[in-house]
Amino acid sequence: MSNFKGESLQPLFYPTSIALAGVTVDNPQHWTRTFLDSLREFQFEGPLYLVNPKGGEISGIKIYRRFADIPQNVDYVISTVPAKAASGLIEECAHKGVKAVHFCTAGFSETGEEEGVRLEAQLADLSRRTGIRIIGPNCMGIYCPGSRMSFNTDFPKESGPVGFISQSGGNTSGLIRRVMSRGVRFSKVISYGNACDLNESDFLEYLAADSETKIIGLYIEGVKDGGRFRQTLHKAAEEKAVVLLKGGITEGGARAAASHTGSLAGSEVIWDSLCKQLGIIQVHSLEEFADSLVTLRFMSDPRGRRVALIGAGGGSSVLIADEFERSGLSVPPLPQEIRNWIREFTPLAGNILRNPIDYSQNMTEPENLLRTVRIISQWEGIDFLIWFLDLAWIQLNEMDRMRKIIDGILAESRAALKPIAIVVQTDISPEQVKKDYSFLQKCVSSELPIYYSFTSAANAINLVLSHNERRLGKA
Amino acid sequence: MSNFKGESLQPLFYPTSIALAGVTVDNPQHWTRTFLDSLREFQFEGPLYLVNPKGGEISGIKIYRRFADIPQNVDYVISTVPAKAASGLIEECAHKGVKAVHFCTAGFSETGEEEGVRLEAQLADLSRRTGIRIIGPNCMGIYCPGSRMSFNTDFPKESGPVGFISQSGGNTSGLIRRVMSRGVRFSKVISYGNACDLNESDFLEYLAADSETKIIGLYIEGVKDGGRFRQTLHKAAEEKAVVLLKGGITEGGARAAASHTGSLAGSEVIWDSLCKQLGIIQVHSLEEFADSLVTLRFMSDPRGRRVALIGAGGGSSVLIADEFERSGLSVPPLPQEIRNWIREFTPLAGNILRNPIDYSQNMTEPENLLRTVRIISQWEGIDFLIWFLDLAWIQLNEMDRMRKIIDGILAESRAALKPIAIVVQTDISPEQVKKDYSFLQKCVSSELPIYYSFTSAANAINLVLSHNERRLGKA
Repeated sequence: MSNFKGESLQPLFYPTSIALAGVTVDNPQHWTRTFLDSLREFQFEGPLYLVNPKGGEISGIKIYRRFADIPQNVDYVISTVPAKAASGLIEECAHKGVKAVHFCTAGFSETGEEEGVRLEAQLADLSRRTGIRIIGPNCMGIYCPGSRMSFNTDFPKESGPVGFISQSGGNTSGLIRRVMSRGVRFSKVISYGNACDLNESDFLEYLAADSETKIIGLYIEGVKDGGRFRQTLHKAAEEKAVVLLKGGITEGGARAAASHTGSLAGSEVIWDSLCKQLGIIQVHSLEEFADSLVTLRFMSDPRGRRVALIGAGGGSSVLIADEFERSGLSVPPLPQEIRNWIREFTPLAGNILRNPIDYSQNMTEPENLLRTVRIISQWEGIDFLIWFLDLAWIQLNEMDRMRKIIDGILAESRAALKPIAIVVQTDISPEQVKKDYSFLQKCVSSELPIYYSFTSAANAINLVLSHNERRLGKA
Repeated sequence: MSNFKGESLQPLFYPTSIALAGVTVDNPQHWTRTFLDSLREFQFEGPLYLVNPKGGEISGIKIYRRFADIPQNVDYVISTVPAKAASGLIEECAHKGVKAVHFCTAGFSETGEEEGVRLEAQLADLSRRTGIRIIGPNCMGIYCPGSRMSFNTDFPKESGPVGFISQSGGNTSGLIRRVMSRGVRFSKVISYGNACDLNESDFLEYLAADSETKIIGLYIEGVKDGGRFRQTLHKAAEEKAVVLLKGGITEGGARAAASHTGSLAGSEVIWDSLCKQLGIIQVHSLEEFADSLVTLRFMSDPRGRRVALIGAGGGSSVLIADEFERSGLSVPPLPQEIRNWIREFTPLAGNILRNPIDYSQNMTEPENLLRTVRIISQWEGIDFLIWFLDLAWIQLNEMDRMRKIIDGILAESRAALKPIAIVVQTDISPEQVKKDYSFLQKCVSSELPIYYSFTSAANAINLVLSHNERRLGKA
């Protein structure tokens, strides 16, 4: 009987073979199909076995009736068997030498019913006795592009520097989807549910040591061992940027968390002060989480809080300046000397040249826009730049020009060593999105941080800057 | 010489004829074309004249060289002549008996230059002397679907109950676009810029008395006469719901406002207390503005703050409960008796039945979902319902079923006299949007208030509820 108790979790993320237990022939809507489809879509390289006492086959893959019937070794099992059959499955897996089992199945302690609690305790006990590590139950398991493991056919196939540990399967997919179109990619993602064996601290310890992971995201409803979690979090935050979303911070949220993953939630004050003490970036929604990851990933650290806001629209200029200053960032006025310089080639009417710099009337003159960006980037009075743009104003036939402008703006800001981000205002109507998409893809492929509102840009950049300041203050 | 000094502003919104002054034959990108295209797209019914000293024609419409050459009366003029030619135009219009001129042109006091300030003072003086009312300069003028006036070809052609007064042309379009896909329609919209003659108080007074207008939105950078504005706002807020976004609330924003519309911005504290005292709904971004208008328009007043959150996803349930309780709303737990009732036809595993009610596992069973909605709607422990849904989970072939579910849910909530809103999480990828759009259109045509994030729904509903509570407290 193989086990790796106390060893690294590496085998979980890089199994040589996987079996899906509980696959159903009859119901193509069932979860088992999600896992099967995802592993095939990702071209998981090792052998992939299906197991169900009823036998049969799915898309040409034989279904074994018992684990014992599988001729080769099985490393890792994804199980969708009903809660009542979970313990029996562990016994079977133990005989087969399986290292880890991920239980997708719900119906355990999160129900709040005696029976569910008992079944989960039984699982935990079996894990200890057999040495088989358990992920879950009641979760989606592992997404690791590097080993071609996924629980969703649509996730990106490329790896990236973000590791994500999430107690909720839905929020795992929710966060990945929110950032994938903005260019963020992941090293390892774990949806771990009720955590009857492996818990948040185990995964956090692993990601903190994982060289592929530079940024760590956490969605936590409740922790199993507060002392150990605090210690692990402290260590992780010393080495990597950590973003944390605590679910169940209010009474209603805590009640939902108890029903969702059987978690005891803990008070808001405790979590706030924990994050402050350890230098964790605390967020309160998946949107804010996504904005923070985009900032950490693509906004190379600005030296300070002084921003030049360059874009189109007088009313937009007013509102973006308000948002940035209200978030504790500074929008310093351009010195007269620099304004005069820009005015040499820029008409006054309809343009604002003080910072914010409203370039409405000159959007059709890329050379002058780029000259302005060059002058402002090189001004020592600012630390970073924001380019804001309402895509509804841009015609389809102007998109080529806009893509060239992006290249120019990026070149200028990089030459001046000033980070730059773009705030794009768009709409959800199909015509608008179709028009905008290639533009957004261009921004993403240029590794430009993209935000969809003034508020979210200002808020996320402030969060990350405050985090950097605390780190520097400590160093 | 006709004028209507001191009379109602009605003729501005319902002119019998319009002339476009300063139209250019050479440059089809010019603003004049925007106005011409919009008036034609909206099929403005009165005669439409073009005026430019150079003469010529555009799409078969003759361009008169002088106003005097136009054989009939001209009520209303939209001018894009350069700032220097503005005064001459007023003189010409005075002889023609024009009632009002809207100056789109920029280059006046907002430049901060002596010359621009002088030209604007001259305009104001001419307005007083001739009796011609001026909108602007430096603005987009009037959008009034009822009289088929528009400055944008894409605005909705139907009227609605929202009046909007905005100092910024860009923010005017920005707000209209943000709410039009969510079903909000407008009575009268005025982009009024530098306000050298007609100002925010004039238009506010008009909308307060306008029977077509039930809700008033204001985007203000600075006011001309603080005392009169306060009085007018007070009166308007006593009769209608008023939402206000103050631009230029920070130092950077105020600097931008000065350059944008020549406004002196005033401090944040003064505006905050003004809004509190007068019962104005104060917002801080166009997104929050849009959410508040959607709430006022489509969320019939809930009797209180107690919400039932019904939707799909355990993690989503936790986060939405947190957002609503953090915004001061209450998510009361379902009594055991009601939970038992729902459990009779709902499996426990994967569903949360406490409020929030996570219906993940039963989304494919519309009858049971609707039974649950009926039971909860009729429970006296709640005042309104939220249905939350991640559209990424819904397959294209399920959209028909989803549309039927909406009808059912709406019927149940209306039968129980409990308002309901929907929070839809979506993505901006073209495939996703294409899939979602017909679903969203269905929600809109059913007059369901739609929000795109938990945060924005909770925030806007709290803003409107707080506003209602203040009104009731006063009554």
